[in-house]
Amino acid sequence: MVTRRIFVFALLWLIGFGGATSARAADDLLPSWNDGPTKQSIIDFVTKVTKEGGPDFVKPEDRIATFDNDGTLWVEQPIYTQFAFAIDRVKATANQRPEWATTDPFKSVIAGDMKAVAAVGEKGMVEIVAATHSGMTTVDFNQTVSDWLATAKHPRFKVLYTDLVYQPMLELLAYLRANGFRTFIVSGGGVEFMRAFTEKSYGVPPWQVVGSSGVTQYQMWDASPVLVKQPKVLFVDDGPGKPEGINHFIGRQPIFAFGNSDGDQQMLEWTAACKRICFMGLVHHTDAVREYAYDHDSSVGKLDKALDEALGKGWTVVDMKNDWKTIFPAEKASP
Amino acid sequence: MVTRRIFVFALLWLIGFGGATSARAADDLLPSWNDGPTKQSIIDFVTKVTKEGGPDFVKPEDRIATFDNDGTLWVEQPIYTQFAFAIDRVKATANQRPEWATTDPFKSVIAGDMKAVAAVGEKGMVEIVAATHSGMTTVDFNQTVSDWLATAKHPRFKVLYTDLVYQPMLELLAYLRANGFRTFIVSGGGVEFMRAFTEKSYGVPPWQVVGSSGVTQYQMWDASPVLVKQPKVLFVDDGPGKPEGINHFIGRQPIFAFGNSDGDQQMLEWTAACKRICFMGLVHHTDAVREYAYDHDSSVGKLDKALDEALGKGWTVVDMKNDWKTIFPAEKASP
Repeated sequence: MVTRRIFVFALLWLIGFGGATSARAADDLLPSWNDGPTKQSIIDFVTKVTKEGGPDFVKPEDRIATFDNDGTLWVEQPIYTQFAFAIDRVKATANQRPEWATTDPFKSVIAGDMKAVAAVGEKGMVEIVAATHSGMTTVDFNQTVSDWLATAKHPRFKVLYTDLVYQPMLELLAYLRANGFRTFIVSGGGVEFMRAFTEKSYGVPPWQVVGSSGVTQYQMWDASPVLVKQPKVLFVDDGPGKPEGINHFIGRQPIFAFGNSDGDQQMLEWTAACKRICFMGLVHHTDAVREYAYDHDSSVGKLDKALDEALGKGWTVVDMKNDWKTIFPAEKASP
Repeated sequence: MVTRRIFVFALLWLIGFGGATSARAADDLLPSWNDGPTKQSIIDFVTKVTKEGGPDFVKPEDRIATFDNDGTLWVEQPIYTQFAFAIDRVKATANQRPEWATTDPFKSVIAGDMKAVAAVGEKGMVEIVAATHSGMTTVDFNQTVSDWLATAKHPRFKVLYTDLVYQPMLELLAYLRANGFRTFIVSGGGVEFMRAFTEKSYGVPPWQVVGSSGVTQYQMWDASPVLVKQPKVLFVDDGPGKPEGINHFIGRQPIFAFGNSDGDQQMLEWTAACKRICFMGLVHHTDAVREYAYDHDSSVGKLDKALDEALGKGWTVVDMKNDWKTIFPAEKASP
């Protein structure tokens, strides 16, 4: 009888411990966030939606949190990491594509003339991505990305790109999951490029990664089925494409969303159209010393209209310089 | 000290209890499956891949199981449920579309002349689905499907369509989840149609439902964001589209897949191309008394080439008549 009572007590203690992590554990789980209104807005929101019986309680299955990737979870300057990969792939495979030696934008990429590449604009970027992201199987592409991520270094920080994820955002992802949230990535980046590292880097499994995608084609190679990547866009997950992508892949409206650029504006608006309370956040890059400082006029990660809307509507805006104690995990990257 | 010891014991007991469900619980978790080689093939596979330290052990994050929906998880005869919905929507909204009174296939649908509808074939079906699945917001569409599912009755069984899910497959989904699998639906049906019932009926959340989809467009209606369904196909998740859809949505190859028709053949082949062991299953509709009997020559859920391949390769083929003790939950539907 005593044993039984102690057992029940232990069980209740365990349950109690599991259910009361939210507010109490926040300080432990978000150590890289400086105290202040930004951190407090996150903790307040999570405390409210997880308080059983409270007016703002949200059932765990509805606790959907969506995060942009480039500039929100990792560095996107001076060029998007996926574009750096594409450029390296052009150089690495140029000997198999002799026609590139005389055709722009490939000719300029091979010559290392990035000014000329920039001059061809978005059309040139799309051509470079299409050429380097098609013609192989999905398995081979994944391997190529993994190999590149294991060796390629960021031009300024001289470390692997996966060392340039933001420590405060890793903590935020974990904090939300510890509070029953399901964390999704919703990025304009290629879904297959991201899936090569998102599980290891962010703890987000591949089926919770939403991104832009190309058409693949099922084929038989030597009596084995393969999916071959085609140079044809299936879906662009950017701007208005983000709420469309959320509907397409997730099928449920988020109550929490974080972005950092105008490409995230519609995702945040879509989240803001929630039934009760919801959280909208932007990372504002204000730290030229430890990372980068850019917003309205940047060609990469331009933050203009979305910043105005966020400030006007009282959404949370992270001031990277003042809100983040550290930027990168274990300060792997020294600026 | 004694308290502490008892507590530790209780904790170990709890952990032990959670970790040893696999083989032991199979008989309890699959009560609607008759004993025999079919049921045994499922239990054997699950036992092998969950045995830690065993040669066939698969980590939980790689235990991906995919299920077709129509004819695999619920009834698809005499016509696909989604098509029954579309026909009812044509009738319900005909007064808003006067041009339908004189245009086929709508004219025939309104007149109840299903032979004439059948005569227009797949092209007519696509027209009917496009017309009834576009022009509204995703929220309104979801509500319309939910309302219809709450009232529409199956023509033969005279019960709700959601009462015509297969009890043995519900048990299989739960059995796999109890053994650390993540269960996905991979269906040719419309993803938004399915998501109106898949969480409640199958315990599968919306982001684990893969299906065919139409384009949606982000718009502002009265300063509120909405997604408006367009009459344009984005993705067809059938046949070779199934492995493509698995890659697109899930991003990981299944080790367990179940289908019932030729539309599932490529999903099963894709699953069969696993690194170690994998499970491929087909539901063969052999029970004209309790459900339906059809295969090679059926216009709905044709099972021809996939059956030959399954028999040739030793995949598991469910003989519905002999392998399933009961067909529907609590025998709601009497044939």
